[in-house]
Amino acid sequence: MPVLSPSVQRLIDAFRALPGIGPLSAQRIVFHLLMEDGRAQAASLSSALQEAVEKVHHCPVCNTLCESELCPICADESRERDKICVVETPADQLVIENSLAYRGLYFILGGRISPIDDIGPEQLGFRKLLERVEKGGVKEVIIATSFTAQGDATAHFIARAIARHRPEVRVTRLARGIPSGVELEYTDVATVAQAVISRHETFSSE
Amino acid sequence: MPVLSPSVQRLIDAFRALPGIGPLSAQRIVFHLLMEDGRAQAASLSSALQEAVEKVHHCPVCNTLCESELCPICADESRERDKICVVETPADQLVIENSLAYRGLYFILGGRISPIDDIGPEQLGFRKLLERVEKGGVKEVIIATSFTAQGDATAHFIARAIARHRPEVRVTRLARGIPSGVELEYTDVATVAQAVISRHETFSSE
Repeated sequence: MPVLSPSVQRLIDAFRALPGIGPLSAQRIVFHLLMEDGRAQAASLSSALQEAVEKVHHCPVCNTLCESELCPICADESRERDKICVVETPADQLVIENSLAYRGLYFILGGRISPIDDIGPEQLGFRKLLERVEKGGVKEVIIATSFTAQGDATAHFIARAIARHRPEVRVTRLARGIPSGVELEYTDVATVAQAVISRHETFSSE
Repeated sequence: MPVLSPSVQRLIDAFRALPGIGPLSAQRIVFHLLMEDGRAQAASLSSALQEAVEKVHHCPVCNTLCESELCPICADESRERDKICVVETPADQLVIENSLAYRGLYFILGGRISPIDDIGPEQLGFRKLLERVEKGGVKEVIIATSFTAQGDATAHFIARAIARHRPEVRVTRLARGIPSGVELEYTDVATVAQAVISRHETFSSE
């Protein structure tokens, strides 16, 4: 005999389907939300979800999530409009913004090339990115896809497409190397190898 | 300048407030839900929340979460109605049900005594539990609160109250000892100490 009522089970299943939430966490969240103290929280989570689904759309220029017609970054005239940083997700964009090291514009792919999941250049809005580059005024495209096989493939594909259509645009990729604040001794060999290969002159101008 | 739109930020905050979800997990969940693939999932989570908040209430007898007038266990005439197992949460009840070792009824406290959080016997529905015991017909109350300082205090309080009102009712607590399938060598000393203290004759009748 099932102990859990159907609505409770349905809610547990809905939480379990979220990334990073296992069966026990889902159960814990649901019991928390349905006990006295959690009811108001459940209602406000429900309405926050509904509101976000209704209001939030993709910026027509950079594809990030936003509520206004253009996202605040695309609408900001003070940004360096000749640079486009290409990232996989809005979360990646957030990390780069928080680094305070970049003042240009963005393009959010919404994923990376993954033939096994049927995700190719078409699904990632490459055409929209290329149109932006072809329109002119772009001097540099900084590719900030992840350093995985799929992220590398995506970066390679973008770099090749831009080189073919607009060879004068500089295409760069984030530097790989030893992370800040980390002991060399405890760094994995692949990272150390990459840092050795990408070594540069000290006191370089850049 | 905030990169995230207000509805997105509000949704991230709502997820962060859930037990066991940190800032990065909340962000990951929200970006997942608002990208193309997740929209349907967001809507169904929102409606599952709303439905559960509307339909699910506490069983008037045992206090567990249910949709019907009585919960399925309290309504089931085949359960051993002279036993009440007292647990802290519906999740604890679920674990005991899944053990298949218990066929009696339940009482869900909804927490444990915690003076620091202003949770005393009043908040935990002790009166309702005592009323059930005083009505008669109950032969045993099995206390299954957690083995923490607060859980122990709660167990002690319940045992004393029942002994005062209905001394003929047997009050028991779950056994403490070595978990199943665990090597003695890797068991913590507190658990081993408890198992030594609670040792019993082999081939005992129980």
